[in-house]
Amino acid sequence: MLQVLTTVKEMRAYVDRVRGEGKRIGLVPTMGALHAGHLTLMRQAKQVCDVVIASIFVNPTQFGPQEDYEQYPRVPENDRAKAATAGVDVIFQPEAGEIYPAGYATYVEVGGITEKLCGLSRPGHFRGVATVVCKLFHIVRPDRAFFGQKDAQQTLVIRRMARDLHMDVAVDVLPIVREEDGLALSSRNVYLSPQERTAARVLYRSLGTAEAAVREGERNVTKLLGLIQSELARESLARIEYAEIYGYPELNPIQELQDKALVALAVWFGSTRLIDNTILEVAACS
Amino acid sequence: MLQVLTTVKEMRAYVDRVRGEGKRIGLVPTMGALHAGHLTLMRQAKQVCDVVIASIFVNPTQFGPQEDYEQYPRVPENDRAKAATAGVDVIFQPEAGEIYPAGYATYVEVGGITEKLCGLSRPGHFRGVATVVCKLFHIVRPDRAFFGQKDAQQTLVIRRMARDLHMDVAVDVLPIVREEDGLALSSRNVYLSPQERTAARVLYRSLGTAEAAVREGERNVTKLLGLIQSELARESLARIEYAEIYGYPELNPIQELQDKALVALAVWFGSTRLIDNTILEVAACS
Repeated sequence: MLQVLTTVKEMRAYVDRVRGEGKRIGLVPTMGALHAGHLTLMRQAKQVCDVVIASIFVNPTQFGPQEDYEQYPRVPENDRAKAATAGVDVIFQPEAGEIYPAGYATYVEVGGITEKLCGLSRPGHFRGVATVVCKLFHIVRPDRAFFGQKDAQQTLVIRRMARDLHMDVAVDVLPIVREEDGLALSSRNVYLSPQERTAARVLYRSLGTAEAAVREGERNVTKLLGLIQSELARESLARIEYAEIYGYPELNPIQELQDKALVALAVWFGSTRLIDNTILEVAACS
Repeated sequence: MLQVLTTVKEMRAYVDRVRGEGKRIGLVPTMGALHAGHLTLMRQAKQVCDVVIASIFVNPTQFGPQEDYEQYPRVPENDRAKAATAGVDVIFQPEAGEIYPAGYATYVEVGGITEKLCGLSRPGHFRGVATVVCKLFHIVRPDRAFFGQKDAQQTLVIRRMARDLHMDVAVDVLPIVREEDGLALSSRNVYLSPQERTAARVLYRSLGTAEAAVREGERNVTKLLGLIQSELARESLARIEYAEIYGYPELNPIQELQDKALVALAVWFGSTRLIDNTILEVAACS
């Protein structure tokens, strides 16, 4: 029976009780508007933990002033029904003032890996992400927390934070869940017009172009980026914000592929910004 | 029997064990060079908790590049003997690399109250304090943590951080412990020459001047600061870094005393910087 809790106090009481029973707690932090990607995280959490808590909180501090905080889809009834089918025990759905009480002034800042990709185009975004996830970890005290690879840089920020601050939580990252035509699931896909929805398939196609080139032996990053950009340019509705390749997981600049590299895309379709990524892997010389 | 643990892993194992036994954990974070102020914190921790953990860690990130990180007194043998007499169960004494592993990039920043007093004269100081205390809270998971009022602004920063990040720990602040002549105990007092040691009595005297004036009805902050500065000026070895009065605990600027106010001093004696403070309290109109 799915419970919905809205206050930190209730959440703590619940956590104290189930921890006292020796149960392992899994946390799936979300902003709601749940899709199959989120549900995969929840099902996986249920597999490896005794109790699954999903937070639904559209976090104001990770949106810039010109961004879609107000418009972000909020469908609590739908979310509850979906979460229940995925084995969630508790939804934690606080008001903004519950998480950011009057006079709050504390932020968690992760340097280095936040100074590129979405960190450049969305100043303050990862500060908001790290801060809210830190708060959620403190409130829920999960044994494991589950995030999607779709937000590749976010997962690196959270892992870095957890490690650097000696947080006693395992951070599990699950693969991107895609539509049949390859579009990565995102709560923001609902913003797309039918034409933009069709156009957005170019994200997956361009990642595939790079993957194919790597399979055929291409190792040069500039050439790979050229292939990606050409593919994206064929779609007139696509406006590139960034298309970059970095070493993974350090996000270090590279000229030639070696071990693992992240291809990360942020592309606008009309007023909708979508991101996607893939990890290119090159076998070590044998 | 006092144990000394040096790794996060050992510390976690100890904490898991005693928490499993239902024991309440008290943490006294220190930089070592223990004096009677620290010992008071430890004894109080022992009164209200089952297990007392004292950390001894000279935290590099809270020292500026020109500050006394290298010279800061390190007397581990003495510290252990003193901590044992004060009822400490475990000393946590990690190397810097244990707390700040290679590649660390995460900091906790508290805004607002850090933008004045020591926060102005020691840029980055409170970022270092908040970050290391956050780490220690994660490693030790104390029920209560104990700090001295001597570092008045620090206690406000830590309380703000704990509240803002929803950390499940009570922060207890104990009164300043002073020498017979009024000098606040500080690990840095050992830096003072005999002449400077005598001169440093002016800190307590000047705080006393303000307290006496308030008792006699003075409410004007400019006048109170004038009295303090005159008193400090009578001591030729004293060089004022700041002498300020703010509303307490918000550290808001005030012209007239109302409720509580913090008088905070930072004064140099030769190459030694000492701080001291007192809280002025004005009864509400009756």
